[in-house]
Amino acid sequence: MPTPDEARARAVVDRVEPAIDCGRFAVKRVQGEPLVVVADCFTDGHDTIRAMLRWRAEDEPEWREVEMQPLVNDRWQALFIAGEPGRYRYGVVAWVDPLATWRTEFARREDPADLRIAARVGAALIAETSRRAGGGERTILAEWSRALEAAAGDGGGLDRLRSLALDDIRYGLALRFPDRRFQTAWPIELPLKVDRPRAGFSSWYELFPRSTSPQRGRHGTLADCAARLDDIAAMGFDVVYLPPIHPIGREKRKGRNNALAAGAQDVGSPWAIGSSEGGHKSIHPQLGTLDDFRALVAKAKSLGMEIALDIAFQCAPDHPYVEAHPQWFRRRPDGTVQYAENPPKKYQDIYPFDFETDDSAALWQELRSVFEFWIVEGVRVFRVDNPHTKPFAFWEWVIDEIGREHPDVVFLAEAFTRPKPMHRLAKLGFTQSYTYFAWRNTKEELTEYFTELAHGPGREYFRPNAWPNTPDILTEALQYGGRAAFVSRLVLAATLSANYGIYGPAYELMEHVAREPGSEEYLDSEKYEIRHWDLDRPDSLRPLLALVNRIRRENPALQSNAGLSFVSVDNPQLIAYAKRSADATNTIVTVVDLDPHHVQSGWIDLDLARFGIAPDDTFQMHDLLSGARYLWHGARNFVLLDPARMPAHVFRLRRRIRREQDFDYFD
Amino acid sequence: MPTPDEARARAVVDRVEPAIDCGRFAVKRVQGEPLVVVADCFTDGHDTIRAMLRWRAEDEPEWREVEMQPLVNDRWQALFIAGEPGRYRYGVVAWVDPLATWRTEFARREDPADLRIAARVGAALIAETSRRAGGGERTILAEWSRALEAAAGDGGGLDRLRSLALDDIRYGLALRFPDRRFQTAWPIELPLKVDRPRAGFSSWYELFPRSTSPQRGRHGTLADCAARLDDIAAMGFDVVYLPPIHPIGREKRKGRNNALAAGAQDVGSPWAIGSSEGGHKSIHPQLGTLDDFRALVAKAKSLGMEIALDIAFQCAPDHPYVEAHPQWFRRRPDGTVQYAENPPKKYQDIYPFDFETDDSAALWQELRSVFEFWIVEGVRVFRVDNPHTKPFAFWEWVIDEIGREHPDVVFLAEAFTRPKPMHRLAKLGFTQSYTYFAWRNTKEELTEYFTELAHGPGREYFRPNAWPNTPDILTEALQYGGRAAFVSRLVLAATLSANYGIYGPAYELMEHVAREPGSEEYLDSEKYEIRHWDLDRPDSLRPLLALVNRIRRENPALQSNAGLSFVSVDNPQLIAYAKRSADATNTIVTVVDLDPHHVQSGWIDLDLARFGIAPDDTFQMHDLLSGARYLWHGARNFVLLDPARMPAHVFRLRRRIRREQDFDYFD
Repeated sequence: MPTPDEARARAVVDRVEPAIDCGRFAVKRVQGEPLVVVADCFTDGHDTIRAMLRWRAEDEPEWREVEMQPLVNDRWQALFIAGEPGRYRYGVVAWVDPLATWRTEFARREDPADLRIAARVGAALIAETSRRAGGGERTILAEWSRALEAAAGDGGGLDRLRSLALDDIRYGLALRFPDRRFQTAWPIELPLKVDRPRAGFSSWYELFPRSTSPQRGRHGTLADCAARLDDIAAMGFDVVYLPPIHPIGREKRKGRNNALAAGAQDVGSPWAIGSSEGGHKSIHPQLGTLDDFRALVAKAKSLGMEIALDIAFQCAPDHPYVEAHPQWFRRRPDGTVQYAENPPKKYQDIYPFDFETDDSAALWQELRSVFEFWIVEGVRVFRVDNPHTKPFAFWEWVIDEIGREHPDVVFLAEAFTRPKPMHRLAKLGFTQSYTYFAWRNTKEELTEYFTELAHGPGREYFRPNAWPNTPDILTEALQYGGRAAFVSRLVLAATLSANYGIYGPAYELMEHVAREPGSEEYLDSEKYEIRHWDLDRPDSLRPLLALVNRIRRENPALQSNAGLSFVSVDNPQLIAYAKRSADATNTIVTVVDLDPHHVQSGWIDLDLARFGIAPDDTFQMHDLLSGARYLWHGARNFVLLDPARMPAHVFRLRRRIRREQDFDYFD
Repeated sequence: MPTPDEARARAVVDRVEPAIDCGRFAVKRVQGEPLVVVADCFTDGHDTIRAMLRWRAEDEPEWREVEMQPLVNDRWQALFIAGEPGRYRYGVVAWVDPLATWRTEFARREDPADLRIAARVGAALIAETSRRAGGGERTILAEWSRALEAAAGDGGGLDRLRSLALDDIRYGLALRFPDRRFQTAWPIELPLKVDRPRAGFSSWYELFPRSTSPQRGRHGTLADCAARLDDIAAMGFDVVYLPPIHPIGREKRKGRNNALAAGAQDVGSPWAIGSSEGGHKSIHPQLGTLDDFRALVAKAKSLGMEIALDIAFQCAPDHPYVEAHPQWFRRRPDGTVQYAENPPKKYQDIYPFDFETDDSAALWQELRSVFEFWIVEGVRVFRVDNPHTKPFAFWEWVIDEIGREHPDVVFLAEAFTRPKPMHRLAKLGFTQSYTYFAWRNTKEELTEYFTELAHGPGREYFRPNAWPNTPDILTEALQYGGRAAFVSRLVLAATLSANYGIYGPAYELMEHVAREPGSEEYLDSEKYEIRHWDLDRPDSLRPLLALVNRIRRENPALQSNAGLSFVSVDNPQLIAYAKRSADATNTIVTVVDLDPHHVQSGWIDLDLARFGIAPDDTFQMHDLLSGARYLWHGARNFVLLDPARMPAHVFRLRRRIRREQDFDYFD
């Protein structure tokens, strides 16, 4: 049976939220972002309770605390902002507070004799409180207790007794010294992972370094790539992501357009990693040297950007690991190494690691050392290839190990698979995740999916990164939608998702021809050959990319997904949504024509109250794409978009702040 | 880092449901009722997994298991039926199954060389499986392995190889001997409490024994009460619940209609427990002796009923505990014992226990012994008075302790308070709970509340017991609604809730005068005086009670709340709902006129598909209250109820099972 002390712990703390899988996984926030915590707190009977939200860095012994406030129905709330990137814990404690109970009941008492007796009870409680206080507070509280005891007995007026007992200022002081011996703690110390701001707001640009030579036909180098950085920075990107830069296998090398046999000149796929020239810690000789890589990282940094590497844990047949560590690979009964397959498909140029090998400790440590090698070289962002085909336990371990030493490292999970494995990867530690965005095209699909991402249970751990294209994904929408589709898909990605990216220059040059009908593969894909891009083509989307990225940087509303809400428009081809910054000072309303071929118009219905606009007020819709400013009045307004000109508005909603001599000023 | 064996545990098990507060509290079922369990199970990559639902009695070392089946989206499901009343544990395990994976992939393979190599892989896996099997199975599997190995190498036809490899019968045998060394278990062993059937389906009749004398003016006795049992049994009740039967305090005794001072003849409130004649383990001398009580229990048993006692842990000022255990009570500064209060209200005739006393161990054990005293006397049902004003930890401990020795004991929580404390009491162990039913009158209120009770999260642990009246609750609906209100509230309680009760004979005699306007207290309440009831009044609802209880006994649909769904009617004064038994063989559709003063009619819209009726089929609505049988056709049908005659239909929906010579037969 409970001890007498346990029996006194009468407060209940329950349903502390957010919590992921009973605290098995961490909630995520970026530095500076508040964590709002709610919990059920109550006790038996009529006594008054107090509750505290507490938190600490995982390696700190002491909790910090903030007092929770009651909402309705025994639900309590408070928030805190953790510090530097790293791992934290939080929880809730509550206790039945005798002094608060006494005060609540005292205020309701009517019987004069009762009031005098209750005043004496209160005097005793305040005296106890004073003994827990120190210095000046102790004196003040002891004096209050004596005065109350005296007033209870001296036959003076009840009004005086009441105002002395219910003195707000001294009670506020007493609240700092509660009797918490019998407090109840929610038994689970919930984990929180704080990431650096770029984990929550980033603009990615993927490019193949071997296609960066200004000279057609020559293999691009890391130095060529470095020369491209000014242009990419001018477009406003902050993460430059490179497909694998390691030596490419020669055995079973694929030819152009994924031909089974490569010609002598074929450069192969960068994801067929490893040859006699080295493996995951080497640089493909035709790209340059480690020094070239360091120069690239340094230049990116000088431009406010960073280099993201692609980590693909798989080997070409001639990767040095295959000979050095044969136990890391499965064998077929005929003695050959088991290549990757998903019957009836075979990928004979790729050997997967056998994560279940008896030698898993050595394998896992070696793979971890791959991350660490590039971290030493200044890389802090990794895009991980197909993490869902390697054990979850491996990722949880390696991300945790690296995060403890380098809490600023960002991992993007490239898992295009079923929802549960994608969510598992996000829960176990991946900082960001690719999404289904590429295949969400209609108003209904986009609304449902982004509502789920922003407001579903995954909002606490799954940070979407939206890509309209990748080297593997040339969607039907882009194949057949022309320039308007490229523009609208870009605007959607960049305004719906705080993290987004494109695969360029294919994107800004609107590369749209598929290898064959029904395929999402590019014709003459850079995955298997060097491409030369005419970057100065007059129809390039480069200026638009620069504008969209500037709008993102200048508008906090677009730097988080939490403030997303969809807006009603009476045309199924028009989608509209608002994003509002946490402090409500910045609101962006985006309207996109989802039909790349026709002018579409409709009436938009804004929930004005949500944006703090009176029903009869005038407000300004400032289109940040065109620069045009429209005066709107009331909830219902007309919009028209011509995809041949510009299939989207990105409005900043500006409230009227004053009116002078018939002239309106907007914020 | 994980050991190589842990690294091999690649399956994920997550979100096992039902689970209450991460397994902190038990899910409830009654004996024979299945528990359907669902869980997320998946693994990395493309491998095939298997998953088992497992369960055991808490004191059994070994799990029983049943294989789970995949639903959609990585969600798996299975069910089990636990045994005798008691405490159980359940959980889910899953593993990556190499043989199942091999078979799935083999079936998809096309390349002849691959098929032969894969057959050899399979032969090895089957050989391993045979070594885990015993006896005859071992032989069969070993032979299968040899045959497959031979067929892989003999250059025979691929069709033969394929059919041998994919042999269903031998695969079915192999499934019994999986390699589960690296299985993953959901880390929480979830608790399940199985109660006896009456916990889920019961009909309660509350009466004051002191008012059971057939002779006006004489104090009723337990023997008089026993004489009433035949009548109560004839009305179809199965739990006869008595307010406290202990000696009643004389100090501060309340008079008739709760007058502050009692007259010499006033009998006092049974809830003011204890006097010089004894306390919680004694019987009020005017009611009789312990032998009389034993006779009452025996007679109830002989009639298929049982006696429920009221456990009210509080004392009259002259309860023997007050002198024997002064440390169990709080003192005021003036040295007097602290009476119950909720300022400005005072209850000077009641001393609450101080559950936080330093002597709590002795107090808690003594209170436990009160239950045990009456258990020895054959009581297995306790209605607990105001449990929400005593510590939750006490109830959790005492119910757990008693349940381990007497898993057939039923505890009904009389907590009319906020939702969170009510749910906490149900979670921590109370078998049944009083509800807000008495104050849910409109169609909207009833629909919302009973939908929540039947289908909200509480459905796993909160078993509602619906009472249209109690000695403390004479609702406005009953005060002003006349006979029709008594009938309709009875039908609602008895058909919406598998557990229900009435306070009689006040109910069947339609006692409806309140002590004063706006009060829910009865005038001349039995709580403070002896009443003489004219049980043979011709307008008594006794025949209706007997009929309603018979309908409940004969229709399994009414014996659970799980099958409840509300039915659309186009009149806000008419409410309609269906209840269907788990096996779908019994469906009851109840229609109630919520307006006690006027005839109401409307069109009812049945979801025929839900009840297995074709859109164009005829079915019979057999009104079990009136005996009338209506032929309905199609979803939309007319209903009319006249409250002056009968404000409700309780239809048994009968499907047409055959038609012979233009004559329809219904089930």
